[in-house]
Amino acid sequence: MEEIELSARDARAKAEKLIGGLDVVFVATNGSHGHPNVRAMAPIRVDSLDLIWFATSLESSKIIELVKDHNAVVYGYSPETLAEFRLWGSVAIMDDHETRSQVWCDELKEHFEGPDDPNMRVLKFVSVSGKYAHAREAGSF
Amino acid sequence: MEEIELSARDARAKAEKLIGGLDVVFVATNGSHGHPNVRAMAPIRVDSLDLIWFATSLESSKIIELVKDHNAVVYGYSPETLAEFRLWGSVAIMDDHETRSQVWCDELKEHFEGPDDPNMRVLKFVSVSGKYAHAREAGSF
Repeated sequence: MEEIELSARDARAKAEKLIGGLDVVFVATNGSHGHPNVRAMAPIRVDSLDLIWFATSLESSKIIELVKDHNAVVYGYSPETLAEFRLWGSVAIMDDHETRSQVWCDELKEHFEGPDDPNMRVLKFVSVSGKYAHAREAGSF
Repeated sequence: MEEIELSARDARAKAEKLIGGLDVVFVATNGSHGHPNVRAMAPIRVDSLDLIWFATSLESSKIIELVKDHNAVVYGYSPETLAEFRLWGSVAIMDDHETRSQVWCDELKEHFEGPDDPNMRVLKFVSVSGKYAHAREAGSF
């Protein structure tokens, strides 16, 4: 069974379509004791495949992991079609008022008091490359 | 909002119940260039939370990652309840006839010719510790 190679443009377009339909993605980090770590996260804003925003509690273990090593992978997966993408990049932990205000949305009210809640941090994921795969189709971008 | 700490026994029991209802788990590895990696995988057999079997193609990039570094995390997640567990452990790449025959099942026929298909490898995940979390409940085992 041969793999069909998608162009970078097609692979990116298919990954964009896939992320548009997902409630959560899976964010993998370099965890403790030489083990990777991963968790489901609902993005609070997807500007593009290159720039995705999350919010997290300061108490989360992912904060410590990301302070130690900002490398991360965002993985998206459709249980229906089994299509998947990976975005390789890094996460910056943002604490400034402007960023907090820009990404604040109603969904966060359940977890935080407001954009300046001292327990909240904004995670800015910037990707440098990606890959999309579905059945025998695959392509990098 | 205080966290309710589960006993090791309760946390394990809840993680066992959760994995029993999942079609796929997410297997994170230490990938290339300092980045973690992760992918959805359907276990071919779950003996317990301590021993989970997968099958993979020899061509998969995860083979190279696991040869370089056998550390892995198996993450399970329910989109309905948002309950989740993590199992920290390592993966052995198995190539012997006995193991291949023991884990062979009909679901693999779609991807491989038979238990001795030279393109198939069996992945034996053994965990050393785990954590379960759901809403405010969490516990390690």
